[in-house]
Amino acid sequence: MMEPIFDARAMTSLTDSLLLSLRVDQPGTLQARLHRAIREAILSGRLRPGERLPATRLLAKSLSLGRNTVSLAYEALASEGYLTARGGSGHYVAADLPDAPLNHDPIPVRTSKTAALAALPVSSGQPALDLFPRDLFARLTARAWRRAGPALLSCRDVAGLPPLREAVAHYLRVTRDVRAEAGQVVILSGVQQALSLLAHLLMPDRDAGVGIEDPGYPGLVETIAALGRPAISIAVDRDGAVPPAPAAPTLTVLSPSRQYPLGLTMPLARRIAWVQAASEQGFHILEDDYDSEFRYEGKAQPSLQGLDPSGHVLYTGGSSKALFPAARIAWLVLPDRLVDPFLKLRHALDSFPPLASQLPLVDFIGEGHFARHMRRLRMAHRDRAETFAAAFRVTLGDRFHLSGGGAGLHLIAEPVTGDLPDDRILARLALDAGIGAAALSVTYRDVAPRQGLLLGFADIPSSEMPSRLARFKASVDAGSISDFQRPHHGLG
Amino acid sequence: MMEPIFDARAMTSLTDSLLLSLRVDQPGTLQARLHRAIREAILSGRLRPGERLPATRLLAKSLSLGRNTVSLAYEALASEGYLTARGGSGHYVAADLPDAPLNHDPIPVRTSKTAALAALPVSSGQPALDLFPRDLFARLTARAWRRAGPALLSCRDVAGLPPLREAVAHYLRVTRDVRAEAGQVVILSGVQQALSLLAHLLMPDRDAGVGIEDPGYPGLVETIAALGRPAISIAVDRDGAVPPAPAAPTLTVLSPSRQYPLGLTMPLARRIAWVQAASEQGFHILEDDYDSEFRYEGKAQPSLQGLDPSGHVLYTGGSSKALFPAARIAWLVLPDRLVDPFLKLRHALDSFPPLASQLPLVDFIGEGHFARHMRRLRMAHRDRAETFAAAFRVTLGDRFHLSGGGAGLHLIAEPVTGDLPDDRILARLALDAGIGAAALSVTYRDVAPRQGLLLGFADIPSSEMPSRLARFKASVDAGSISDFQRPHHGLG
Repeated sequence: MMEPIFDARAMTSLTDSLLLSLRVDQPGTLQARLHRAIREAILSGRLRPGERLPATRLLAKSLSLGRNTVSLAYEALASEGYLTARGGSGHYVAADLPDAPLNHDPIPVRTSKTAALAALPVSSGQPALDLFPRDLFARLTARAWRRAGPALLSCRDVAGLPPLREAVAHYLRVTRDVRAEAGQVVILSGVQQALSLLAHLLMPDRDAGVGIEDPGYPGLVETIAALGRPAISIAVDRDGAVPPAPAAPTLTVLSPSRQYPLGLTMPLARRIAWVQAASEQGFHILEDDYDSEFRYEGKAQPSLQGLDPSGHVLYTGGSSKALFPAARIAWLVLPDRLVDPFLKLRHALDSFPPLASQLPLVDFIGEGHFARHMRRLRMAHRDRAETFAAAFRVTLGDRFHLSGGGAGLHLIAEPVTGDLPDDRILARLALDAGIGAAALSVTYRDVAPRQGLLLGFADIPSSEMPSRLARFKASVDAGSISDFQRPHHGLG
Repeated sequence: MMEPIFDARAMTSLTDSLLLSLRVDQPGTLQARLHRAIREAILSGRLRPGERLPATRLLAKSLSLGRNTVSLAYEALASEGYLTARGGSGHYVAADLPDAPLNHDPIPVRTSKTAALAALPVSSGQPALDLFPRDLFARLTARAWRRAGPALLSCRDVAGLPPLREAVAHYLRVTRDVRAEAGQVVILSGVQQALSLLAHLLMPDRDAGVGIEDPGYPGLVETIAALGRPAISIAVDRDGAVPPAPAAPTLTVLSPSRQYPLGLTMPLARRIAWVQAASEQGFHILEDDYDSEFRYEGKAQPSLQGLDPSGHVLYTGGSSKALFPAARIAWLVLPDRLVDPFLKLRHALDSFPPLASQLPLVDFIGEGHFARHMRRLRMAHRDRAETFAAAFRVTLGDRFHLSGGGAGLHLIAEPVTGDLPDDRILARLALDAGIGAAALSVTYRDVAPRQGLLLGFADIPSSEMPSRLARFKASVDAGSISDFQRPHHGLG
């Protein structure tokens, strides 16, 4: 029953390697494992762009799997851009996947001269804090403290509590396709600490610059400036950050899941181009997966780190966006070769992370409460994004074009009339009206800035949106800043 | 009734200034406020070395205080070294207080070449963790989380939670005579973070060295090395750190309350010499008051920072020694002029401290549980120090001379026979026997090292001391390291 177009020897070799991959003790369902195995065959070049895959029925038989399992894995791979389905003739490896680093026109790499953004609103928003399960959190925390004996009270693990690192590694493997074992996970206070320590570790030349998207997250520009290093702009096009030619800086921070602030999701071809460039040129990417939990439409792209077998992508995410801003707990996933030198440096500069911020999360993540809370937030955020967008269009639709809302914690409102104040003034007006806001223009450095507002929708109960938006509209109409000069808050 | 030797005009001017000081809304009893006012008169030069103070009766009348209040204040000042009592002829300002910076023989200031101490045991011990009130701590923590609304969950105070800073400032004023308002207090993760940020802030020249006692705390030497800066040795004599001539490094870390590792308490004259030198030469002292809670004999010297009206002494202490090592929460008290620049730098590099490690301490300190726990630990530690010393002398008194035990968390055992192994080997043998230990020799850098053991007594229940010491003695007798190569633990 083999279809004539398919080469039997290649088939045998493919199924052998898939079988091998499936046999390895890996997490996830059979379908997830097959999915991963095929993806790896594509990424490693064993399956080439344009090549046809075995028919589902055939592969299912060879691997002793249900045909449905194979079909679902193919469909998932197609939705992610790895495969294309051609009507009745089966599945092919996508033709636009690069099998060598893409050649780009040279991108101007310039050193940023404007680092004084510290005083402007920079946060990318916060989740629905009114839905945080504080009673549950209090109960888990108290239980953990009551059980904490001398061994735990004196635990000095430089990388963080082993059971928390185990829980984080499992969570990241399952939800973000990160290649993570507990031994590679380091608990930190946030992406700033990750960046400081990595810059120190990977670039002994203290004047070497750090690559950062332009537009990008001003908080990281501030960190780089405080380190006394130049921020090197990485251009962003409609597919996200563009790999610069001839080479990227030794350490480059990217937000491929949801580019900050523009909200772009980097497509697969661009991801592979970055991973290949990093591996071939020997630079490192710090993947800032800051709010990957919050995707309300479509399917999330798995992490960039998961595409990189060479250990040049370092993954960081955290709980400050997901749980609450004051949590200040994050995780960094390192390749094995960097774990020891990183921990030595961390020990010298910061000893180890505090027990109190780790302790509640061990069970909160490990017992599945975190994942459940994320599901609940996703539903609430999707509702709030829709309600906010509808109310905004009614109130201010003649002044602004609104976009985003399919993911993350902010929408983008861009002025469509020329008579509006500067976006930094608009952000203050929005904050005064009780809407978390930041100016889009301050996220640009070397690239000519666009005017716009990042508007936090997730932490406003739907019932309060119309009145706050009406207040915002009134002050935009009045064209003046209120006397209430709030300190420099970010979104919310 | 005025005694003839006393100058009436000077008396009027002194009582006026004391009255002024007493009137100011300051914390503490009348006696404590009088104590502080006289001390400040001495330190500011209004009362000169050798000068006689008014009779208690006379001063009491002028200030409308009870005579007993004045007598007690005089006695306290005498016990601290500010005054000397001469039989029946009253109290005099101590003659050995310097009124100008003391002239020292030039102290060799050399740059340390040996920064690779990271792998050796370095901790200075831990408190009685079996006595930590974990049920109370669990209850306070759970209550705080249940009350934590969205405002707290999104609190982004770069300096730390305002009520915690308030509680810490009050605690430090009352127990350590620190000049601290809540606005000067910054919550950090530990002395390493304080040192990193201060070096960055105060010494823009990235090659400038940091002054550190020799012998001193290897953890800080490690931090300085990781910052890429030289560690500049500050000599230690029997009065503690010696102010170097002609000038100390721009930032110098001292442990005047209890010198690490030697346990010396810096006497008043030396303290004043340091404060005057810092103020006149314009350098900064970071006062590491790491285990000031634990003094079992005599009276603690108040903080160095409290002697310094010029804002050149920065005070740091924390809860890792006092509560438990995994707490990783510390406080830094800054002069007003450094608060804003320090917070700007902290924001750029670390955002703000985690809520979870601050939240339980607000009530634990604010409601007095911390002070009560410290009292309980002091009693337990004193008992344990005595029991440990007695058992040690019986078991190993012919091999080692034991000292310390009046304060802190370790005793020092120095070999009296020449046939013992190197102290780094002895430290491993002690660790294997269940006794927290570190080698004295590794705390030296440029100064010729002394052999010895720092032995943690506070975290061993008294009943277990004899058997652990017997095990240690047996392995010293056998003269070999056990196969159990523990990772590089510090004391306990």
